[in-house]
Amino acid sequence: MSTSIWASVDYDRPGKQTGDLWLPYSVHRSAYGNLTIPLAVVNGAPGPTLLLTGGTHGDEYEGPVAFRRLLRWIDPAALRGRLIILPALNAPAVRAGLRTSPEDGGNLNRAYPGEPFAGPTAAIAHYVSTVLLPMADFYHDAHAGGSSLAYLPFVSLRRSGDDALDAAALAAARAYGAPNIQIWGYSPDPRLSTAEANRQKVVSLGGEFGGRGTVSREGVALVERGVRRLMAQWNMIEARPEDALPGESPARTVEVSGRDCYVYAMRSGIFEPAVDLGDSVVGGDLCGAVWGLEDIADPPHDQRFSRDGIVMCLRHPGLVQKGDCLAHLAIEVPS
Amino acid sequence: MSTSIWASVDYDRPGKQTGDLWLPYSVHRSAYGNLTIPLAVVNGAPGPTLLLTGGTHGDEYEGPVAFRRLLRWIDPAALRGRLIILPALNAPAVRAGLRTSPEDGGNLNRAYPGEPFAGPTAAIAHYVSTVLLPMADFYHDAHAGGSSLAYLPFVSLRRSGDDALDAAALAAARAYGAPNIQIWGYSPDPRLSTAEANRQKVVSLGGEFGGRGTVSREGVALVERGVRRLMAQWNMIEARPEDALPGESPARTVEVSGRDCYVYAMRSGIFEPAVDLGDSVVGGDLCGAVWGLEDIADPPHDQRFSRDGIVMCLRHPGLVQKGDCLAHLAIEVPS
Amino acid sequence: MSTSIWASVDYDRPGKQTGDLWLPYSVHRSAYGNLTIPLAVVNGAPGPTLLLTGGTHGDEYEGPVAFRRLLRWIDPAALRGRLIILPALNAPAVRAGLRTSPEDGGNLNRAYPGEPFAGPTAAIAHYVSTVLLPMADFYHDAHAGGSSLAYLPFVSLRRSGDDALDAAALAAARAYGAPNIQIWGYSPDPRLSTAEANRQKVVSLGGEFGGRGTVSREGVALVERGVRRLMAQWNMIEARPEDALPGESPARTVEVSGRDCYVYAMRSGIFEPAVDLGDSVVGGDLCGAVWGLEDIADPPHDQRFSRDGIVMCLRHPGLVQKGDCLAHLAIEVPS
Amino acid sequence: MSTSIWASVDYDRPGKQTGDLWLPYSVHRSAYGNLTIPLAVVNGAPGPTLLLTGGTHGDEYEGPVAFRRLLRWIDPAALRGRLIILPALNAPAVRAGLRTSPEDGGNLNRAYPGEPFAGPTAAIAHYVSTVLLPMADFYHDAHAGGSSLAYLPFVSLRRSGDDALDAAALAAARAYGAPNIQIWGYSPDPRLSTAEANRQKVVSLGGEFGGRGTVSREGVALVERGVRRLMAQWNMIEARPEDALPGESPARTVEVSGRDCYVYAMRSGIFEPAVDLGDSVVGGDLCGAVWGLEDIADPPHDQRFSRDGIVMCLRHPGLVQKGDCLAHLAIEVPS
Amino acid sequence: MSTSIWASVDYDRPGKQTGDLWLPYSVHRSAYGNLTIPLAVVNGAPGPTLLLTGGTHGDEYEGPVAFRRLLRWIDPAALRGRLIILPALNAPAVRAGLRTSPEDGGNLNRAYPGEPFAGPTAAIAHYVSTVLLPMADFYHDAHAGGSSLAYLPFVSLRRSGDDALDAAALAAARAYGAPNIQIWGYSPDPRLSTAEANRQKVVSLGGEFGGRGTVSREGVALVERGVRRLMAQWNMIEARPEDALPGESPARTVEVSGRDCYVYAMRSGIFEPAVDLGDSVVGGDLCGAVWGLEDIADPPHDQRFSRDGIVMCLRHPGLVQKGDCLAHLAIEVPS
Amino acid sequence: MSTSIWASVDYDRPGKQTGDLWLPYSVHRSAYGNLTIPLAVVNGAPGPTLLLTGGTHGDEYEGPVAFRRLLRWIDPAALRGRLIILPALNAPAVRAGLRTSPEDGGNLNRAYPGEPFAGPTAAIAHYVSTVLLPMADFYHDAHAGGSSLAYLPFVSLRRSGDDALDAAALAAARAYGAPNIQIWGYSPDPRLSTAEANRQKVVSLGGEFGGRGTVSREGVALVERGVRRLMAQWNMIEARPEDALPGESPARTVEVSGRDCYVYAMRSGIFEPAVDLGDSVVGGDLCGAVWGLEDIADPPHDQRFSRDGIVMCLRHPGLVQKGDCLAHLAIEVPS
Repeated sequence: MSTSIWASVDYDRPGKQTGDLWLPYSVHRSAYGNLTIPLAVVNGAPGPTLLLTGGTHGDEYEGPVAFRRLLRWIDPAALRGRLIILPALNAPAVRAGLRTSPEDGGNLNRAYPGEPFAGPTAAIAHYVSTVLLPMADFYHDAHAGGSSLAYLPFVSLRRSGDDALDAAALAAARAYGAPNIQIWGYSPDPRLSTAEANRQKVVSLGGEFGGRGTVSREGVALVERGVRRLMAQWNMIEARPEDALPGESPARTVEVSGRDCYVYAMRSGIFEPAVDLGDSVVGGDLCGAVWGLEDIADPPHDQRFSRDGIVMCLRHPGLVQKGDCLAHLAIEVPS
Repeated sequence: MSTSIWASVDYDRPGKQTGDLWLPYSVHRSAYGNLTIPLAVVNGAPGPTLLLTGGTHGDEYEGPVAFRRLLRWIDPAALRGRLIILPALNAPAVRAGLRTSPEDGGNLNRAYPGEPFAGPTAAIAHYVSTVLLPMADFYHDAHAGGSSLAYLPFVSLRRSGDDALDAAALAAARAYGAPNIQIWGYSPDPRLSTAEANRQKVVSLGGEFGGRGTVSREGVALVERGVRRLMAQWNMIEARPEDALPGESPARTVEVSGRDCYVYAMRSGIFEPAVDLGDSVVGGDLCGAVWGLEDIADPPHDQRFSRDGIVMCLRHPGLVQKGDCLAHLAIEVPS
Repeated sequence: MSTSIWASVDYDRPGKQTGDLWLPYSVHRSAYGNLTIPLAVVNGAPGPTLLLTGGTHGDEYEGPVAFRRLLRWIDPAALRGRLIILPALNAPAVRAGLRTSPEDGGNLNRAYPGEPFAGPTAAIAHYVSTVLLPMADFYHDAHAGGSSLAYLPFVSLRRSGDDALDAAALAAARAYGAPNIQIWGYSPDPRLSTAEANRQKVVSLGGEFGGRGTVSREGVALVERGVRRLMAQWNMIEARPEDALPGESPARTVEVSGRDCYVYAMRSGIFEPAVDLGDSVVGGDLCGAVWGLEDIADPPHDQRFSRDGIVMCLRHPGLVQKGDCLAHLAIEVPS
Repeated sequence: MSTSIWASVDYDRPGKQTGDLWLPYSVHRSAYGNLTIPLAVVNGAPGPTLLLTGGTHGDEYEGPVAFRRLLRWIDPAALRGRLIILPALNAPAVRAGLRTSPEDGGNLNRAYPGEPFAGPTAAIAHYVSTVLLPMADFYHDAHAGGSSLAYLPFVSLRRSGDDALDAAALAAARAYGAPNIQIWGYSPDPRLSTAEANRQKVVSLGGEFGGRGTVSREGVALVERGVRRLMAQWNMIEARPEDALPGESPARTVEVSGRDCYVYAMRSGIFEPAVDLGDSVVGGDLCGAVWGLEDIADPPHDQRFSRDGIVMCLRHPGLVQKGDCLAHLAIEVPS
Repeated sequence: MSTSIWASVDYDRPGKQTGDLWLPYSVHRSAYGNLTIPLAVVNGAPGPTLLLTGGTHGDEYEGPVAFRRLLRWIDPAALRGRLIILPALNAPAVRAGLRTSPEDGGNLNRAYPGEPFAGPTAAIAHYVSTVLLPMADFYHDAHAGGSSLAYLPFVSLRRSGDDALDAAALAAARAYGAPNIQIWGYSPDPRLSTAEANRQKVVSLGGEFGGRGTVSREGVALVERGVRRLMAQWNMIEARPEDALPGESPARTVEVSGRDCYVYAMRSGIFEPAVDLGDSVVGGDLCGAVWGLEDIADPPHDQRFSRDGIVMCLRHPGLVQKGDCLAHLAIEVPS
Repeated sequence: MSTSIWASVDYDRPGKQTGDLWLPYSVHRSAYGNLTIPLAVVNGAPGPTLLLTGGTHGDEYEGPVAFRRLLRWIDPAALRGRLIILPALNAPAVRAGLRTSPEDGGNLNRAYPGEPFAGPTAAIAHYVSTVLLPMADFYHDAHAGGSSLAYLPFVSLRRSGDDALDAAALAAARAYGAPNIQIWGYSPDPRLSTAEANRQKVVSLGGEFGGRGTVSREGVALVERGVRRLMAQWNMIEARPEDALPGESPARTVEVSGRDCYVYAMRSGIFEPAVDLGDSVVGGDLCGAVWGLEDIADPPHDQRFSRDGIVMCLRHPGLVQKGDCLAHLAIEVPS
């Protein structure tokens, strides 16, 4: 079956349009209601299409804010190609400030390629897969750690198995100008947006630009500059001197190579970290301690790294349950 | 009526004891159930009593972790006086990682002096007011910004109107060794724990040692050292060389002098800050912008400071509602 | 897989029986529990089978009340054929007064043809599709606007693409004697009960007989008379003089022809309508205004019709969210 | 203790101001948050103060919409006296579309005279009692039936026991120009806003201007005209010809004299009314029937009036529980 | 302030009446709604008044079922005095099968003497205290262990400090004919119904007649016979031969003498008991073990009795939290 | 697609290991979180594999406790073969004490053969079906009545249609040594764990060893002895004299032969049983009565058995809804 979502913009009309996707949603409070998903389309001179999505998770903010800044800044007359921007893709989750949709509990980045009539989250994924990605030459889905994780900022790519596609993605990542490029070399979950882009041979970049459920000023600036640099790289706009990288700072490239990069809580309680983002650690180093909440006489439970690496990600909230990710590492690889 | 809470420790027995306060709580899941609140008592040689409480709000972690570290470290044989430690005072809130109690919604720091039979939160406040504070010579209630706020760390006092009491508190604050001392000179809400301590003429210190709903390593270290410095100052333990302050760093003293120190959200949406903690601003400076979530074409709503000051506090979560505190300032005063 | 639902009535036994469908439902509160769906079967002399369903949405009442009145009135000795009545088809929704099921959130009229083991709502649809509709010659599913919409009463049909079937449905609609006949000429969602009836070549009528989440006395009387007139038309009972239509009032026939018949809220707030049900409007007319709830100084947001037509449906509750249907039109067509 | 609520407007400044009451509300999602309650103050030439409140219940809309229309229309230069308008007094309830506050469950019209620190609803009542009513000469609190009741529109007064005060209220009610004036002669619950006004000797009018949880166009027009007529009567504005009453239509005066005016559901199920608003009935007449939802074979339960009167109020939602009010009568009294 | 509750029965009318208490309850779903509490009054020849209440906790069933059996059995012509029966006193809790009220969370047996306007639970307690107990000569409030506890059945009394009153209660307990009489000699919480009866000098009996949230056949029979025996003892009815006690079985009398009778969970997990109801234990005996749910390698945590006694009460649900009562003992005392 | 679950144990390593299954679960509170399911593997000398699962429903305790006792007792040196133990298979349900998962509402015993990415419950079923059962020669899934049912203890088998498989299961059931063996001869729901075992030709036993949501001491002992007897029978361990059956007590064999073995509530209210577990009844006997909760004057509704049999199962909680199972019978068959 085909999607029931329709757009209030015309993807082909010249100039800058704003509007919404309309997802029919018949519920008690509104029998003929719709979920609305904000979007903008900017058409300039002939050229490629760049699709920008944020709000795949509703508590990741740097990409969405940067995209809204870019939308206000972009001049269709100065654009070659088309920009499609959806800064709040899982709109119910964004309005609730939640990773997952309050409507159906769906995690949009575990929902691809989607289904048209299996709940709003799957319907959004299905629309991206069947309508938006087929229009795109380039795709950037901006993430952050959300409410539960803090990230060292990076732009990322996911190995597709198609060397030409991966090379194009790596070239794009380098153009982005982030201090770190991370390659997801492990567990390519097939239900991610970038995995779907890989299947459709669309050059795609992910990235984690902050986290903790807040808006990082540095992350916003990084994405804003990064997308302009990408567009210049792809000849969609003229390169801007103020977007040049400061001094000599080629990005470091790291890879998440396996499950042993992760430290998971083995007990529930309050997690007190022993490291900071960006620290280099060796196997056996203390990652932190979990203080139990049942008996004050209990000693804290030590948690250690099982291999060497750079701390890319740390648990943010103090309270943890057994099974939560406390940290993950990545391994520096040749750029 | 008197409290129904009882302690499984003997406040007068020599040595180190751990246990719980038992608060009878008859509910569906447990007709003869109790809420348990962990506590420890350490009795050494004769001397004063220091009462330490954390977890007044269940998502403020630096004080509780530091207090549990101190509990493990302290040697009763080296102690003059008594240490009473409750690192998870509003225990149901702590176990849920929430500011307020999941049992009755109570904010423990708006519940003093409390009532014995008006719900668990009021009963805890009542026990502190009627049993614990009367035993105490000194009181330290450690806070942080919790899930919704980020704080520049400081130790604090609340003006009591009793000059001798305030001078003793200020002396204690200086001994603590925090980089900032904040005086709450505005709106002494009578329902706070430190306001109750003031009424009982107990020398008391507050403090905000981090926030964002996470465990700040710096905050934990600050409290751990601060309490040891306080105890040394009060001759409860010997001063430790490793707790000396590094170099020349007398604390800066600031005061929150009125409602004009605060910036509140005038619109709902995503708050993008324009300043960092510790920045000095002048009236009219941009505090940040709120990006609305209903129509993507709407411009962001600018929020500005209404006076000069130092940014002590910032909203943490990206999502804000009209009425939320976005930031507050404090004004430097002579130390 | 086949249905796990069983009926406590015998569909073929002569006379009037009442009972329930039993839908096994193993949940915490009842490991071997069942959801029960009330039904009645009335068998008379040989003749056709008419299936009547109400409570597809649990807050639509006119049909269900009329069907229960008809059940008490009907004399099997005076009946040719069989009457199968389910006045509370989505029984959990009916008992909760909700459009959708409190058990699984399902909207029964977006669930056809259903599945036997994918939750109660899908199981009910599956039973209708595989057991009830195959027994039926004629099908009438009575609806109303429910809690969120008010309707100008009408009997309706859905174009099937089968001219003979549509002609039979239109003849039935005329026999019904409602003041309005509405043709759903747009967006034949395949998951509706009447769409399933169309697929099975069962002559089917829908209808909206009130709304607002209340019981309309006029709507109840309209359905009660309409079904008796239908049965007389199909020679299942003798026509009754008291069911004759008053005076010269042939039904008006209208069609919902496209998405441009609908007005959707573009802002959230309180909707103040500017029209009444049954009004004739032209494109550009004011449909109403939405008063925002964040800043009292904001002007109301005007909402206008985008084409000409008759107001068939209006939003009922005062509070609206962006995306809600505020009104829809239909266009008069030759009868 | 005094209120912690503050206003962002100056009640004495000339001209038209809009803003909010700020009610400090420290909760998990916002440690230094506030509930904001929109208000407007219009100061003209010297004269009396009229206080208008709507949204005492969050699902009663006619008064609030009319007041917002009046606010936009009023010209301070043409005003003698002061107008204080709060169209969403229990703001959390209004934003949720609920009778009662989602924050503390409070029914604001069962909360007077209020308390400053016993939850938001009581704090709002306390502010009205201690700040707003003491400023007022006249008070109008506009209600409607809300989500659960439908009302024949009327302006109303509540007997105070002070003859002069009651005469002033009755004169005001006559000036209002509503088709019905209702006197609450039974059960003067002391916790209502108008009871508090009576205690403070402020001339006050209530009124029920619609209901069903929707916005009645007639009700909005009635309040808008009624308040202008009141203001003209009190010499606050010039009388407008377009606000004259049409033809000869003196208001009917009715009284709710006792508990026997009410019909309550004796069984749970679907309520099918047998009367309409405005009908005159005699004791023993059928009010309606309740159709049970457990066994389809059960007959409906008849509900009858126990005395004569005019049907002023009817249950709106189809689903009822034992104990719900199905209807109430009033008795015509000499005007 | 006086109660707003009214009764649909006349407490003084001869014969048997059934009806409800009506507690006005204005909430969103019913603006003029009422909570209804079923009651019956049976008036016979002149004589004393016996008040029977069950459903103080909504998941305790033996008393309520026995009382409804007694109500059907009793013949007013054979009664001397008055019987007032409320088998579902906290009616919202009873209808939900919960210990505490789903309306306000209230535990009715921690609510005496009650308040008229502080929520439904307090209003019910207030009505009992101010209307029902003043009419009563004798009072029996039947309890059971409810969902969380299993009890060895007993009739009980609570020491009042008034020797004559206690002697009358003990005589009544002996007349009851239960196998055990339990004296609550510890912690006379002032908020219980029987404590209120003590304050009013009404002879009162409690009792725990089963538990586990189920209906015990033995408990029902015990209460049914016990109340008939009581009534015969007080000359309200003739003694029935079939209510004679079988053989030689004088009740055992036991007392709960202090907090050391109780065993509380010190860890959370699954509680595996090591004893049965009625067992005699000595201090140090194993009460059971708690199996933790976080790490399967953890050994179970042993829980022991701290004194000798008879096991009167055991935790019922398998899942326990730290603080839950696992068992309590009573000590046999001379009868 | 294959499972995303991984085990922290090595199924082939000699000796006793404990650990968890890790089920990736990306939700708001933990973006990279996992659900952990405790398991143990014991490898001895070469021999068959016995898979033991408990906690399929989270409120059934006898099997899980016995399995944890067995785990502590078993000595790998004395074991021939492999034991795989999962005592809390639906771990989220077990930690919540619920039949069904609090994460997705899933009933694990209605989820086979499962799906890897359709929620945690289906993912667990899928892991059992694709990883665990293929390793198993014998399978025992221990159940109990849970919170809503009480059971006469028995070991059970489900007819597979494969005579050899059924004979092996019956032989195992006899070896188990339970007082009753129950054959499920009716409605072999294909979604049960033992139905999946049947499909995979794994010899499997079920069993209900208690219920009521509590831990039955007798049930624990029965399972503990039963599994040791099974293992001895299969030559995995030496038979223990203390596990011999006492005296002459061959198990009774019964069969649930059809829907007429069940009694379902026809009305809602409080269920008062008229029989005990193990009673023999004849068709027409009273099973119990349901006392309605709306009108105290209503008589109880009698519920009767429709055939002869032995009462194997009774409703536990007092409160019932129409449709709940009140009891079921089984018919004795030749052993």
